[in-house]
Amino acid sequence: MQADDARGMIFRRKDLLGLADLSREEIQAILTTAASFKEISTRSIKKVPTLRGKTVITLFYEPSTRTRTSFEIAAKRLSADTVNLTVAASSAVKGETLIDTAKNLEAMAPDILVIRHASSGAPHLLAARLRSSVVNAGDGLHEHPTQGLLDMLTVWEAKGRLDGLKIAIVGDIAHSRVARSNIHGFRTMGSEVVVAGPQTMLPPYLADLGVRVTFSLSEAVADADVIMMLRLQLERQGQMFFSTLREYSRFFGLNPGHLKLAKPDALVMHPGPLNRGVEIAPEVADGLQSAILTQVTNGVAVRMAVLYLLSGGEVSGAAA
Amino acid sequence: MQADDARGMIFRRKDLLGLADLSREEIQAILTTAASFKEISTRSIKKVPTLRGKTVITLFYEPSTRTRTSFEIAAKRLSADTVNLTVAASSAVKGETLIDTAKNLEAMAPDILVIRHASSGAPHLLAARLRSSVVNAGDGLHEHPTQGLLDMLTVWEAKGRLDGLKIAIVGDIAHSRVARSNIHGFRTMGSEVVVAGPQTMLPPYLADLGVRVTFSLSEAVADADVIMMLRLQLERQGQMFFSTLREYSRFFGLNPGHLKLAKPDALVMHPGPLNRGVEIAPEVADGLQSAILTQVTNGVAVRMAVLYLLSGGEVSGAAA
Amino acid sequence: MQADDARGMIFRRKDLLGLADLSREEIQAILTTAASFKEISTRSIKKVPTLRGKTVITLFYEPSTRTRTSFEIAAKRLSADTVNLTVAASSAVKGETLIDTAKNLEAMAPDILVIRHASSGAPHLLAARLRSSVVNAGDGLHEHPTQGLLDMLTVWEAKGRLDGLKIAIVGDIAHSRVARSNIHGFRTMGSEVVVAGPQTMLPPYLADLGVRVTFSLSEAVADADVIMMLRLQLERQGQMFFSTLREYSRFFGLNPGHLKLAKPDALVMHPGPLNRGVEIAPEVADGLQSAILTQVTNGVAVRMAVLYLLSGGEVSGAAA
Repeated sequence: MQADDARGMIFRRKDLLGLADLSREEIQAILTTAASFKEISTRSIKKVPTLRGKTVITLFYEPSTRTRTSFEIAAKRLSADTVNLTVAASSAVKGETLIDTAKNLEAMAPDILVIRHASSGAPHLLAARLRSSVVNAGDGLHEHPTQGLLDMLTVWEAKGRLDGLKIAIVGDIAHSRVARSNIHGFRTMGSEVVVAGPQTMLPPYLADLGVRVTFSLSEAVADADVIMMLRLQLERQGQMFFSTLREYSRFFGLNPGHLKLAKPDALVMHPGPLNRGVEIAPEVADGLQSAILTQVTNGVAVRMAVLYLLSGGEVSGAAA
Repeated sequence: MQADDARGMIFRRKDLLGLADLSREEIQAILTTAASFKEISTRSIKKVPTLRGKTVITLFYEPSTRTRTSFEIAAKRLSADTVNLTVAASSAVKGETLIDTAKNLEAMAPDILVIRHASSGAPHLLAARLRSSVVNAGDGLHEHPTQGLLDMLTVWEAKGRLDGLKIAIVGDIAHSRVARSNIHGFRTMGSEVVVAGPQTMLPPYLADLGVRVTFSLSEAVADADVIMMLRLQLERQGQMFFSTLREYSRFFGLNPGHLKLAKPDALVMHPGPLNRGVEIAPEVADGLQSAILTQVTNGVAVRMAVLYLLSGGEVSGAAA
Repeated sequence: MQADDARGMIFRRKDLLGLADLSREEIQAILTTAASFKEISTRSIKKVPTLRGKTVITLFYEPSTRTRTSFEIAAKRLSADTVNLTVAASSAVKGETLIDTAKNLEAMAPDILVIRHASSGAPHLLAARLRSSVVNAGDGLHEHPTQGLLDMLTVWEAKGRLDGLKIAIVGDIAHSRVARSNIHGFRTMGSEVVVAGPQTMLPPYLADLGVRVTFSLSEAVADADVIMMLRLQLERQGQMFFSTLREYSRFFGLNPGHLKLAKPDALVMHPGPLNRGVEIAPEVADGLQSAILTQVTNGVAVRMAVLYLLSGGEVSGAAA
């Protein structure tokens, strides 16, 4: 990835809705900027005045600790003011439409609205109607673009490139917005993506996205540079997607034996929270090849970059 | 309204509990200061150091996103520190009295306590016992003074005066603290107030407040400068206040036809959240005469002014 | 207590887990620093830049308004950024282990993690695994060290010393982390501690802690310098710990008569929230000898001192 040419560029988008929309140059600009912001979180005084006087509202219609916290810390390290709104199902019942809620928030002059919603497309609906920037923090089964970006940053840092790498994504692809964002992002950056999972969890449209499909975990991880395990949503058990946890784990749980099939320096990734002993063996999650906590660290950097670029900041940093 | 004489004045109250208590000069001082603060939220750096090092606690015994967010943003734009406490019924069950809770918070040396409570008079109870300033953010069926003030600011900006205007307030007057604050405020400023609603929703004391009462929406809006629709609290259905939503909407829902009866430049207002198609037709809520989102914007400015004046700030701004 | 020798000292611990672990010098260092910080909360601008750019995360697995608010205000007055996570039982169900949650938060580079958890030892588990500082804000029936410290600060301020004082602690000792922290702390500082409560509420290990035990409230408070009443956890009624509130109150509720048995200037304390008329008569809680609200005020100062010292700050202040 050559990023030098991007330096000083202005990111022209108002919103970040999904990785399907972004060009290679745009993804590169975010990753380059994120890499340059990472150092701020290692300082003794972890704060720069870049977004002082900006207001960032997080509007979460699904509970989340990890993602909301990551956005909040990212905003605060840039000196933005943050306001958190967690809207429980019960209070959405009050009958106000999502658009009315968002229009109301916009009338308070926030700069950026970070939204998570159970309905695919909700952030797009708002982005089209608001002057504020909208960041998609997860919409239904659709996309979770900052997760995709932090995953790409993690791989880029470890491998020095994204182009030509083999990325294996394993688990419930059909119900994973994380998988979708990663597929779009890695494909755009020139990586090869192979997915594996039970037949009931593989959606029909994968071939159209240029993704190779297999029902075998071993086949997926063979010669992989990156093995990305998805969280099994335990609440789907009993919905016919899989029979028992034990069976799922036997066929699609990553254990040390699988690592021997992949490249010797293959990275193990997981978006969290982990179901230890289900989709990933504890010794693999905590092993030397695991990048799981680096992903979280990079989440703050990527979200700082996104908030900064959407606010009109210049692309900074350089290629690795 | 002549505000010049108020400039440089100090607001002498410790608390803002209701608009029934405020003089014409005091209301004028808040509106003038709010108008001058509005510009801050339009800047690129939306923040002034006015209340740096002050602590504002929001203590909400009823859930709220809109009002709490508005106060929080107002405080942050003045550089105050904010702490949010939302007390669910379940944790009030722990048995501590409201006064003990408030005394405890006061012992942490906040400057201003913003309280919402289901019991009328709760903020007054606290104001009498605390050295901190207390702002009523809605108490039972009693008052919601910052809502009244933001409504008055919205009308003042649009009409250049409050004196002599005809304000129609429509809906469930009996159960609306918004209506009460507006009636007190607008009457004090010399406006004429007429209210309309079903007989079951009109309290007996209205005549004493100098308010004209009618059971006809058309009669209320005739020649009105301002039409303020109240939110129908849907949970009251089945309590004999009205029979069906459809019937309520037919008699007391504002539609484009009603606007023709009012002054040509009449303002349409609503405190939110909207029940679209119940008390207000969508095309009216979103129409050219609607000031609904301006109300929200003015909410931040009014709350900035209130926090500032209660902290000992000087009245600023000038008459329109 | 001689504190002069401690000035300029660096507090060498990474974590504050319990008062059982602290030496006399360490407790003295925290109290001295807290006393010097108290003045900040009395200023018009209640804020110093000491911890600017530090991130403090509060992670509460049990609901709390008082303690969480106190930590949040303490952090903000030192200019730290705060992020609040209240984890309901429901979302812990998602299956992530406590250690994984904490490791994830740590990957976002917080400086200090303040944790409350229903399991005794949870903060210790995390402290051993995280590079961030961990502060125990209450763990099961084990310890609540900042509560013990604020109680000691309150007594020290009022009496000028801790050594040789007689401290009576009354109530459900067996289920009180507040009692345990106070017993450890006061014993270390050379105070005499006597506890009283119903037999079912006195744990067997008290003699080993150098504590005198009695089943009589009158005996406990005789000649006491400090009477510390514990909150009766009403939810334990019906678990055979006591028969009725009325009976509990009759035998272990503090009333004005008891004060005559204690030293004339004895201090009355309670960690809150109060059950008025159960463990303490209202006229005693609100009486001249009550230090209950001073405890709350000192809570902010003690937490400022703890956050500051764990961040590498120098011990400040002097002996009273």
